[in-house]
Amino acid sequence: MRKIEHIGIAVDNLDEANALYRAMLGVDHCKIEEVSSEGVRTSFFQVGESKIELLEATSTDSPIAKFISKKGPGVHHIAFDVEDIHASMQRMRDEGFVLINDEPKRGADNKLVCFVHPKSAGGVLIELCQEIAQVREVNE
Amino acid sequence: MRKIEHIGIAVDNLDEANALYRAMLGVDHCKIEEVSSEGVRTSFFQVGESKIELLEATSTDSPIAKFISKKGPGVHHIAFDVEDIHASMQRMRDEGFVLINDEPKRGADNKLVCFVHPKSAGGVLIELCQEIAQVREVNE
Repeated sequence: MRKIEHIGIAVDNLDEANALYRAMLGVDHCKIEEVSSEGVRTSFFQVGESKIELLEATSTDSPIAKFISKKGPGVHHIAFDVEDIHASMQRMRDEGFVLINDEPKRGADNKLVCFVHPKSAGGVLIELCQEIAQVREVNE
Repeated sequence: MRKIEHIGIAVDNLDEANALYRAMLGVDHCKIEEVSSEGVRTSFFQVGESKIELLEATSTDSPIAKFISKKGPGVHHIAFDVEDIHASMQRMRDEGFVLINDEPKRGADNKLVCFVHPKSAGGVLIELCQEIAQVREVNE
């Protein structure tokens, strides 16, 4: 894991949360993106080398809607930046972690992502993510 | 806020959690420290410019023991590195955030810290922290 890529935070209302985090962090969000496959609308704030990702559910069966109905708004996941997601997934499997998806999938912010089950990671939902541009560079 | 200084994670057993995070992050913890005033034993893992701080309760009335009995092990707080904690505390008050302590207090890892109430911060416990060495440099 090279750095904390972002911390994902589940919020009730993205516009209100954007205003709150702008006041907290002293900077505006750098982008808003909808990931329809995950039923979320997200915004990102840059803080040093990492980001804060705010996540608002866009449907009632979104994982974020389920998370909030169970636990309320708050930290949803921690995402680590990895150089080679396939190698990192294999390393995690070898160490006994349980991966939620067998293959990397397309996430927000131009990333290939894989989630690690919180039951195998001390109660924390962990995301591995790799910048998609890096995959292309390797293949070119 | 200059960077994510650390993410604090409440754990049941520090030795077991150290082994888990060593397997996950591929590095060993860089230090273990007990903060008796907070009733916690902590360990730190460096990841890029940030750290993962694992927190084990050392008494039943520790805030970490209470957190775990209510929510289970998991992310407890997000700490941001600030240059001048007094100025950051005043800025946060001016923005309408509720601070848990009126004055900075001594935290783990040679830091002056102040917590922001999660009810004023979208359900997330936020910590401001400043390296103590920097305070001395200013005063000398």
